[in-house]
Amino acid sequence: MPNAEPETIPTNPAAFAVPVVALRRPYLLFLGAITDPDDAKTAFGLRDWCRSACVGQFRLPGCTVSTGLPDMTPPFAVAAGARSLVIGVAPMGGALDPAWVPALVEALDAGLDLVSGMHTRLATHETLAAAARRSGRRIFDLRRADLPLDVGSGRRRTGRRLLTVGTDCALGKKYTALALAEALRHRGVRADFRATGQTGIMISGRGIAVDAVVADFIAGAAEALSPDAPAEHWDVIEGQGSILHPAYAGVSVGLLHGSQPDAFVVCHDPTRRTLSGMPEFAVPEIERIVALTIELGRVTNPAIRCVGVSLNTSAVSDAERAAFLAEYERRLGVPSFDPMRGGAGRVIDELLRSRDAAQA
Amino acid sequence: MPNAEPETIPTNPAAFAVPVVALRRPYLLFLGAITDPDDAKTAFGLRDWCRSACVGQFRLPGCTVSTGLPDMTPPFAVAAGARSLVIGVAPMGGALDPAWVPALVEALDAGLDLVSGMHTRLATHETLAAAARRSGRRIFDLRRADLPLDVGSGRRRTGRRLLTVGTDCALGKKYTALALAEALRHRGVRADFRATGQTGIMISGRGIAVDAVVADFIAGAAEALSPDAPAEHWDVIEGQGSILHPAYAGVSVGLLHGSQPDAFVVCHDPTRRTLSGMPEFAVPEIERIVALTIELGRVTNPAIRCVGVSLNTSAVSDAERAAFLAEYERRLGVPSFDPMRGGAGRVIDELLRSRDAAQA
Repeated sequence: MPNAEPETIPTNPAAFAVPVVALRRPYLLFLGAITDPDDAKTAFGLRDWCRSACVGQFRLPGCTVSTGLPDMTPPFAVAAGARSLVIGVAPMGGALDPAWVPALVEALDAGLDLVSGMHTRLATHETLAAAARRSGRRIFDLRRADLPLDVGSGRRRTGRRLLTVGTDCALGKKYTALALAEALRHRGVRADFRATGQTGIMISGRGIAVDAVVADFIAGAAEALSPDAPAEHWDVIEGQGSILHPAYAGVSVGLLHGSQPDAFVVCHDPTRRTLSGMPEFAVPEIERIVALTIELGRVTNPAIRCVGVSLNTSAVSDAERAAFLAEYERRLGVPSFDPMRGGAGRVIDELLRSRDAAQA
Repeated sequence: MPNAEPETIPTNPAAFAVPVVALRRPYLLFLGAITDPDDAKTAFGLRDWCRSACVGQFRLPGCTVSTGLPDMTPPFAVAAGARSLVIGVAPMGGALDPAWVPALVEALDAGLDLVSGMHTRLATHETLAAAARRSGRRIFDLRRADLPLDVGSGRRRTGRRLLTVGTDCALGKKYTALALAEALRHRGVRADFRATGQTGIMISGRGIAVDAVVADFIAGAAEALSPDAPAEHWDVIEGQGSILHPAYAGVSVGLLHGSQPDAFVVCHDPTRRTLSGMPEFAVPEIERIVALTIELGRVTNPAIRCVGVSLNTSAVSDAERAAFLAEYERRLGVPSFDPMRGGAGRVIDELLRSRDAAQA
């Protein structure tokens, strides 16, 4: 459930092939002056999944969106224990709003690190870089294209892996992975959440933003992210985009191949008709996503199978939710759940059953 | 045919969305000290496809590979008219061999630009950068991750597009695209070759190395590469990798979606059993590649269809070649050809027929 905090220490101690980000907590969440809640996905994710690591929010005049956390300026947040300011909003285009700069300088001067998942690198911004030098603080740009990665090898790795996939962007792949990793640990199964996007990295403190690596290295990044592990260990890998998305399918396919998942859970919003932000594109049929994920996934793991369907039912009534869960469970023949409302246990049953069946 | 030089001025004058590289010709081809002809793919491609733009080759002691062009040092090449030294070899891993540095400095000092398709950026190498400043010459790194691109929009563009796809890397997708663009022009059809890799960019003087862009922008790069064009104009787009390749499928799928091709030609080496450099992976069945290309390609162009099969028959006898061409033509139901031996005309017939049929 969202209010439980995931492990921050990986249970698989295998060395990562790339430098692992180590963020300083707790966080002050920066919201800028946004007026659309959809722009605050990052801040809401942190509030929901690592609430105890968030001391407050920092909003500029005109901001009408709130996480519900107390409003604080950077000096107050530092007094309350904050160690880093996290950019909690994802502006269209990923560029830095010049109006933010004085606020970010104030945060650095107050002694906070800066953590950003924007495509624009804050560390190369002259004013911010100067402020960081002056205060002795660090700027973490989580979307870096210059990680020392290798191209994918396709080599089978030890340990087991689950990937969340989806019919579109922004419908619950990260939350589903967090819920499944937590449910596995509650069963006593060693499991790690593997973050592939900036919010996931902020939540878990580590990971690789796979959409920010050089295109040739997408699969290689996914391989580096979930290294060899003990045979019974599960990596639960955050999916990205959709293999049928007109803009992002390349990332999704490379992540699928590099993750070489034994199992996947397909994430879907049953009320969404067209792709997020692309009204001219219909959401593909979930059965088509499942079949194609298996066909493409077999390249690096012939045993790949679907073990569950995760529905985003945030917009519907309890009665509709129950009907949707029943419908998709029937259509796909695997357990369904909404990770924001529990129910991951039956997917874990299916996951461990398939493991046992595969070993039998 | 390989000895004919493609157009260097695009017949579609639409502005490119990104800065277009303008390389200075002719070239001196640098081979380093390689001993494996497979490492000289770039140099061979330039010799075959823009012979008149290559004045000679520059080899270091120990090099046992030759393009057949005259050996020259940089000063001799400049005297013979050369304007740029092109790194004609692709070392494993893409890193700069320190033993090359004195030779590259000699080239810059002699007045040559440097053109490189390696992942390692030569422009950031201190010694090379200093030599370039000293001589007033430029260093062109064709694989740049920092192009000002947008994410894919999926918007349908005017004009028509053909993409070459393949069952593996390095089996003729670039040569096939060059041959088809040339064959279209010989029919009086306006057509441009669109380069997506470093050798193609060197040959045509422009393009985007799609495997070097930030992963989120693969489809967007492909969209920028073939902008709106007159209705009867064809862009013939160089394919990359394979949609079932364990390392590079992400690039291939993003390129497919961004290219939104009306037609594709599938490239295959009928004698190859396992993927190049990956002996543990079988080459996928060509029928599977065709079916999956259509399924994935329909996301951005519902009318996508296969119009030909291009076979790399360089390793077989004339009799075997004829048998292979007949076999694959029968299996796929479209014309077959080997672009190194002519025969593109029947594919063009099929391409223009399908256009006419679609319009009827």
